[in-house]
Amino acid sequence: MAKAENFSIVGQRVVRVEGYDKVTGEARYVGDIVLPGLLAGRILRSPYPHARILKIDTSKAEKLRGVKAVVMAEDTIKRPWGAFFADQYPLSVGKARYVGEEVAAVAAVDHDTAEDALQLIDVEWEELPAVFDAEEAMQEGAPLIHEDKPRNVAMTIDVERGNVQRAFHESDIVVEDTFESVPQWHCAIETIGSVAEYAANGKYTIYMNTQTLFNARYRIAAALGVRETDVRIIQTAVGGGFGGKSCDDNNAIVAAILARKARKPVKIINTREEEFLAGPRPRVNMKIWVKMGFKKDGWIRAKHIRVIADNGAYSGKAPAITAVASLRHDTCYKYSDVKTQAYLVYTNKIPTGAFRGFGNPSAEWAVEQTIDKAAHELGIDPLDVARMNAADPGYVSPHGNRVTSCELKQCVDIAEKLMDWKKKRAEKKPNTGLGIACTVHVSGKRHFGDYDGGSATIKINEDGKALIISGEGEVGQGAGTAMCQIAAEELGIPLEDVEISQADTDLTTFCLGAFGSRVTYIGGNAVKDAASKVKQQVFETAAELLEANPDDLISRDGRIFVRGAENKSVTVADVARARLFRRGGAPIVASGSFDADSVLQDATRYGNESGAYNFGCQAAEVEVDRETGQVKVLKYVAASDCGTVVNPIGAEGQVEGSVAQGIGYALLEGLKMEDGRPVNPNFSDYRIPAMRDMPPLSHAFAHSYEPTGPFGAKGLGELGMDPTAAVISNAIFDAVGVRIKTLPITPEKVLRALREKEKQ
Amino acid sequence: MAKAENFSIVGQRVVRVEGYDKVTGEARYVGDIVLPGLLAGRILRSPYPHARILKIDTSKAEKLRGVKAVVMAEDTIKRPWGAFFADQYPLSVGKARYVGEEVAAVAAVDHDTAEDALQLIDVEWEELPAVFDAEEAMQEGAPLIHEDKPRNVAMTIDVERGNVQRAFHESDIVVEDTFESVPQWHCAIETIGSVAEYAANGKYTIYMNTQTLFNARYRIAAALGVRETDVRIIQTAVGGGFGGKSCDDNNAIVAAILARKARKPVKIINTREEEFLAGPRPRVNMKIWVKMGFKKDGWIRAKHIRVIADNGAYSGKAPAITAVASLRHDTCYKYSDVKTQAYLVYTNKIPTGAFRGFGNPSAEWAVEQTIDKAAHELGIDPLDVARMNAADPGYVSPHGNRVTSCELKQCVDIAEKLMDWKKKRAEKKPNTGLGIACTVHVSGKRHFGDYDGGSATIKINEDGKALIISGEGEVGQGAGTAMCQIAAEELGIPLEDVEISQADTDLTTFCLGAFGSRVTYIGGNAVKDAASKVKQQVFETAAELLEANPDDLISRDGRIFVRGAENKSVTVADVARARLFRRGGAPIVASGSFDADSVLQDATRYGNESGAYNFGCQAAEVEVDRETGQVKVLKYVAASDCGTVVNPIGAEGQVEGSVAQGIGYALLEGLKMEDGRPVNPNFSDYRIPAMRDMPPLSHAFAHSYEPTGPFGAKGLGELGMDPTAAVISNAIFDAVGVRIKTLPITPEKVLRALREKEKQ
Repeated sequence: MAKAENFSIVGQRVVRVEGYDKVTGEARYVGDIVLPGLLAGRILRSPYPHARILKIDTSKAEKLRGVKAVVMAEDTIKRPWGAFFADQYPLSVGKARYVGEEVAAVAAVDHDTAEDALQLIDVEWEELPAVFDAEEAMQEGAPLIHEDKPRNVAMTIDVERGNVQRAFHESDIVVEDTFESVPQWHCAIETIGSVAEYAANGKYTIYMNTQTLFNARYRIAAALGVRETDVRIIQTAVGGGFGGKSCDDNNAIVAAILARKARKPVKIINTREEEFLAGPRPRVNMKIWVKMGFKKDGWIRAKHIRVIADNGAYSGKAPAITAVASLRHDTCYKYSDVKTQAYLVYTNKIPTGAFRGFGNPSAEWAVEQTIDKAAHELGIDPLDVARMNAADPGYVSPHGNRVTSCELKQCVDIAEKLMDWKKKRAEKKPNTGLGIACTVHVSGKRHFGDYDGGSATIKINEDGKALIISGEGEVGQGAGTAMCQIAAEELGIPLEDVEISQADTDLTTFCLGAFGSRVTYIGGNAVKDAASKVKQQVFETAAELLEANPDDLISRDGRIFVRGAENKSVTVADVARARLFRRGGAPIVASGSFDADSVLQDATRYGNESGAYNFGCQAAEVEVDRETGQVKVLKYVAASDCGTVVNPIGAEGQVEGSVAQGIGYALLEGLKMEDGRPVNPNFSDYRIPAMRDMPPLSHAFAHSYEPTGPFGAKGLGELGMDPTAAVISNAIFDAVGVRIKTLPITPEKVLRALREKEKQ
Repeated sequence: MAKAENFSIVGQRVVRVEGYDKVTGEARYVGDIVLPGLLAGRILRSPYPHARILKIDTSKAEKLRGVKAVVMAEDTIKRPWGAFFADQYPLSVGKARYVGEEVAAVAAVDHDTAEDALQLIDVEWEELPAVFDAEEAMQEGAPLIHEDKPRNVAMTIDVERGNVQRAFHESDIVVEDTFESVPQWHCAIETIGSVAEYAANGKYTIYMNTQTLFNARYRIAAALGVRETDVRIIQTAVGGGFGGKSCDDNNAIVAAILARKARKPVKIINTREEEFLAGPRPRVNMKIWVKMGFKKDGWIRAKHIRVIADNGAYSGKAPAITAVASLRHDTCYKYSDVKTQAYLVYTNKIPTGAFRGFGNPSAEWAVEQTIDKAAHELGIDPLDVARMNAADPGYVSPHGNRVTSCELKQCVDIAEKLMDWKKKRAEKKPNTGLGIACTVHVSGKRHFGDYDGGSATIKINEDGKALIISGEGEVGQGAGTAMCQIAAEELGIPLEDVEISQADTDLTTFCLGAFGSRVTYIGGNAVKDAASKVKQQVFETAAELLEANPDDLISRDGRIFVRGAENKSVTVADVARARLFRRGGAPIVASGSFDADSVLQDATRYGNESGAYNFGCQAAEVEVDRETGQVKVLKYVAASDCGTVVNPIGAEGQVEGSVAQGIGYALLEGLKMEDGRPVNPNFSDYRIPAMRDMPPLSHAFAHSYEPTGPFGAKGLGELGMDPTAAVISNAIFDAVGVRIKTLPITPEKVLRALREKEKQ
C-alpha cells in the first residue's frame, strides 16, 4: 500500500499532454472540422410529447435553393436501436414520443438555409394522449407509449438476498421514507456534434465528440443497418462528456443519413436548446422509497428499497442506471439482508440516461439520508454509523461485488479531520449543521457484452519516443495523460517521450471508452500490458548491445542500464534504431490487453460488476437562513479512495468538478416541464453552480493501493458527485431539523418545511 | 512453381479497393485538404543557375495585407539534408545553385496574395559562373558548386570483379560505344503538394502526397531540426508517384517552416512549372561508355562501363541511382568479369533523382544496345544472345546479387512468340526492323540503413472484417489492393472483408514505402506475417467454439471449418465476438514484420541488394520513314517475370503504363535548357506519349513463383520501362542500319544518321 513514492512519473503533478493544444485554441473540436463540400445539417423536432405522424411533405423544403438533402423515416431502415433495448428510431417512425424527438432533417449549403428549409417541411400531426409521470404511466389505462411495453414498464428488478422480513424483525429501529430526484443535465461547455461523410464504397466516416467510440460505432452501424467496419468513428477533441456524449442520441446517425443522401459531408452541432431537448440524456429521475432496519449501536441490519425510475420516451442506458441505483450501494456498507424492487417506466418526456455517477447520486440521495435519519434517531454520530458499517477489503456484497482494496474507513477519518468535525459538533452554532455521506463506485463495469476490458498498442519510434495507439479517448478528464504516465512509468522513459493517439475505430483496437470511471483502471492496465511487452523487446535488443542478460537490465529516463554496472547504458532511441536497422530488423511494437476480473450479472442480478471499487466520504457544514430558506455551504470536504493517484492535478480537478456538479444537483438544477414541454432549456433558466456558488472545498486522497490496478490505481471520475446531495440535505437537517426529500433543495422548499415544522 | 491456381483471391482480377473513391471523385487528394485557417503558401525561386545572395529584404512583402508569414534561410536551422548526402537546404543559404531553387516563401490568406507578396521580396544577387555539363564540371578550374566537393564530384565508384583485361583478351570480339540519356520527368497528373500545420506542443502534422512516408518523416525532421516523432506525416490520396514523390524536394519542408511562423496550417501545391523546376527529381541523365567482349557463339565474356552521371545541384537519391546504373545489369546475364567506373557530378541544374527504373533505363539504354551491336556483328539473333546469357535461378552476380526465382529465358520465349519474331525476321520488309532487350529489377533494396523490410498490423473487427494498418501507402499503383488480397488469401476471408488504412507515421509502424518495386513483395510479406498471426488467434478461438484441434481447421470465405467435417463451422465474425466478449477477452490483433534476405553493400559495393529479382524481355517492331526520320512502332511486346501475379488487372496496368513511359523516354521526352534555364517546363513543350503515340501492345507474365515472396509474388512496377528505349533503338538499327546513341530518338536525329550513313 501507498507505493506511489516508489514511482517516478505516476503520482507526479504533470501538465496534461493535450494541454498546449487546448490553451492555445489549437485543439480541434468537432466545430473546427472542415471538409470539402461540407453541408450544414438541421433537425426538425416533434413539437408534441405524443403524436401520430399522418403525413410529411418535404417537397417545398427540397425545392429551396441550397438544400441538398431532406430526410425522414422513409430514408432510413426503420430499425430501432438502443444501448440495451432497441426502442429508438433515428427519425420518428409512425409517431413521436417526446417534445424534441427527431422527425426529419435537412442538409443545406449553410445553417440558415437548412433552418429555413425546416420551416418548409409540412408535418400533419394527430396528437395523442400523453403521460408525464412514471407512477401514472404504470397505471392501467395510461396512454401506451411503446406498443410492446404493457403499462409502459421497460424493465423491472425484484431481488432479495438473505431474509429481509426476518432482518427487519431483528432490527432495533426501522426508518423509512421516500425521496425524489430530478433530471439533471451534463451542461458540457461543448454541445454534441458530428460531421458524417459517406463514401462510394459504402463506408461512413464520422468525426464526433463522443466519449465511447466503439459503442457509438456499434449503435450507429445498427441504426444504419450496416456492419461495424462500415462505420469509422474518429474522435475530435471533446469539451466535456460526463456520460452525455456516449452516443445514446441520434445526432450522428441523422448526420450520417443526410450525408448518404446528399453525398456530401454533413455537420450537425446541437444548439444549446437542442442539447437540453434531445442531446445528452439527463440523469434518470427516480422516486425511491427506502426502509432500513438498524441495531441500537448503529449496525445496518436490513434494507428494502423500491425505485420507480423515469425512462422518458426511450431507454438508452436507463436500464443499467436503474439497476445500479437499486443494487450498487450495497457494496458501500456491509449489508447482509437486502431487497430491491425497481421499475423503469416510459413517459412522454426527454429520454433519461447516463450522467456522472450513473445510478448512484439518485440512490445515495435516498439511502444516505435514511441512514442519517437513523443515526439521529439513535443518537449516534453519523460518522460513527458510517465507520461502523463501512466495507472492508475482502467484503463481498450480497449481489456478488467483491471488494479488493477499500479505504472507506480511512476516508471517513479524513473527512472528519478535514471538517474539524468533532470540534464543530461539540460547539454547534444555531442554524448551522454538519452532514456526511459515503459512496462506492466502480472502476469499469461489465455490462456491454461479457467484456469489461480494454486494449492498446504501443510502438517505439526510432527516436525513442513511444506512441500509445488507443481507442479509449480523451474527453477532457485527463485520461490520455494518465495513460501516458502509466506507459512512461512502465517503460522508464520521460513523460515527454510518450504521446497518445487520437481515438479512431479504424486504427485502434476495441475499447469501451469513457464511462464508469474505467479509463485509468482498464485502459491504464491495457497500456501497462502493452508497455511491458514493448519493454521486453527493448530489453532483448538492449541486452545484445550491452552484452548483458535482459533480466539484469533496468530502464530509467529513457536509458537502459545494466543493474549494478550503471556506467553501461544505451538510450531507448539507440535500441529502437538497432532493432529496426539490421538484418531481420523490425519495429518495436506490441498490443496489450486487459479484462477486469468482473462477472456479468446473472438473471438474478448477481455478479461482481467491476474489477475494483472506489470509495469516498464527504461532509458539509451549512448555514440555513430561517428568513429566506437560503442554504449556504460554509465548508465542504471530500475524501476519496481511488488507489494510487496517477496525476494529482487531474485527480483534484475531478473531485472539484464533481463536487460542483453535486452541489448543482443538490441546490440548483432540474428541468422544468409543462405538459411535457421543457420550459427552461437554456442557461438563463437552468442554472448550474458558478464560481460564487462554490463553497470552500478541502479534499484529500486516502493512502490506497489497488492490487489489480495499474501501479495501484483505480477509478475516480464519478465518485465525487455521488453523495453530495445527501451530504447537504443531511447537514440542513442537522442545522434546522427539516429534511428535504425532493431535489433540488430550493430556498422555497426549505422555507416551506421550516414553516410546517413550526406549525407542529 | 505456377501455384497461383491454388489460390482463391491472389491471382484474381479484382477491382482495386480504393477504386470507388477514385472514380466518384471522393478520394481526398492534398488539394482537397481543408483545415481551419488554412493559408496558401508560395515559394520564391532563384532566377539564376548559380548566384550569391547578398541580401534579402522581405519588409515590403510582410506589410502586404493578408500576408501571414514570410520566411527565408534565417527562419531555418540552416542545416542541409538529403537522402544520402546532406547537401540541400530548405531555403538557400548563402547562394543558389540552380534555377528554381527555393530562396524564400510566403504564406498568405490566398494564393494571389501570396503570389503578389513574392514580387515584393527584394533579393540582391551576385551572379556566379555556372557549369551545366557533367564532364566540364569535373575539369580543373570549373566553377565549384559545393565548397567541400572538389571538381564537383559527389561520388565515385570503381569496382572490378574477376580480371577484365584478361577477359577482353579472351574475347572473340570486342564492341564499344558511348550512349547519352536525358533527364526525364514523371509527369504525374497530380503535382507535389503538402499541407503542414504546427501545434503548440511542437509537433508538425503534414498531409502530403508522398510515396515514402517514413523517409519523408526522417528527412523533414532532419531539415527542421526536430525528432522523428515531432513530425507526423499523413498520406493523402496520391495521383501518381513514379519515384518523384519520395520527398527529395523542399515542398513540405517549406510548408512546415511557414506553418510554424504563421501558426496556421499552410498548403503549398506545385504549379506544373514548379513541378518541372524543383518538384520530382527527374531521371539522372548519364553518359555511359560501354565496352564488352563476346565469344563467337554470343557468350558475354567481359564488360567494362564508365558512367558519368549528372547530379544537378543536389544529390538526393542520385548516388544510389548511379550505383544501380553501374552494377545492377550484371544480374540480368551471367557475367563473370566486369569493371565499372562511375562519377556522380554536380552541375548548376535541376537536381536529378529517382524515377521508375532508378538507374536501369539509363544503363540498359547503353548496355542492351551494345549487346545488340555485338549480336549483329556476330550474325546471331539477338534473342539467342539474350537466351544464352540469361540469368538462371541460383545465379549469383559478380556483385553478390543472389537470384532465387528467375524466368528470364521464359520471358525471352514469350516475347519471341508474342512478336511472331521468327516469321517476321524471316520475312523482313524494307525499313522495318525488330529489336529486343532484357532487364532485371529488384523487389525492394537494402540501402536506407541496414533495413529492407516492412511491417503491418492487422485487426479483426467484431463483424469479421479485417483491417490492415500499414504505412506503406497507396500511390495509385494498386499496392493497397495487393496487400488486401494477400491478407484475404491468408485469412481465408472474402476480399470485401479486408480494408487497408491510410498510411500515417503516427498510427502505423515503420515502412519504407513505395520505391524499388518493393511494396507487394516486402509490404505483402509483412501483411502475410501479420495475417498468419491473426489467423492463429482466430483458429485458437474457433477451435474452442468447434471443439476441435486448431491444427484441424481451415478457413474459407469468412468461415472456419473442421477439415473433413465441413458441416461444422463458425464465421470469423462469430470468432471475433467470442474472443472479445468473454472473461479475459481481447481483440484479435497482431503485428507482422518482414525483412528481406538482402545484404547491405560493403565498401566495395558487394552485397545482395534485394530479396528477389524480377526479369523481363521486351521486343518491338518498328518502321522508319526514310524521308522524315519518323519512327513508327508497329507492335510492342512485353514479357515479365514478377512471380505470382497478385492482381492481373493491376499488373497489366503496370506494364502498360511503364512501357508508355519507356516509349516517351525513347522517342519524345527530355528537358531542354538554355544557360541553365529550362525552356520547356510545361506540357505544351514537354511532350509525353498520348494514346495515339502508343503502339499495339501485347504482354504476358511468365509462369513463376518466388519462394520468398508472399504467395510467390515479387516486384513489377518498374520493370516495364527499363529496356524500352534500347528495344526501340535496336529495332531502328535492324530496320535501317543506323544506331541512335542520344536520347530521345527524334526524327531529326534519325534523319541525320541516315544522311550520314548514305554519305559513307
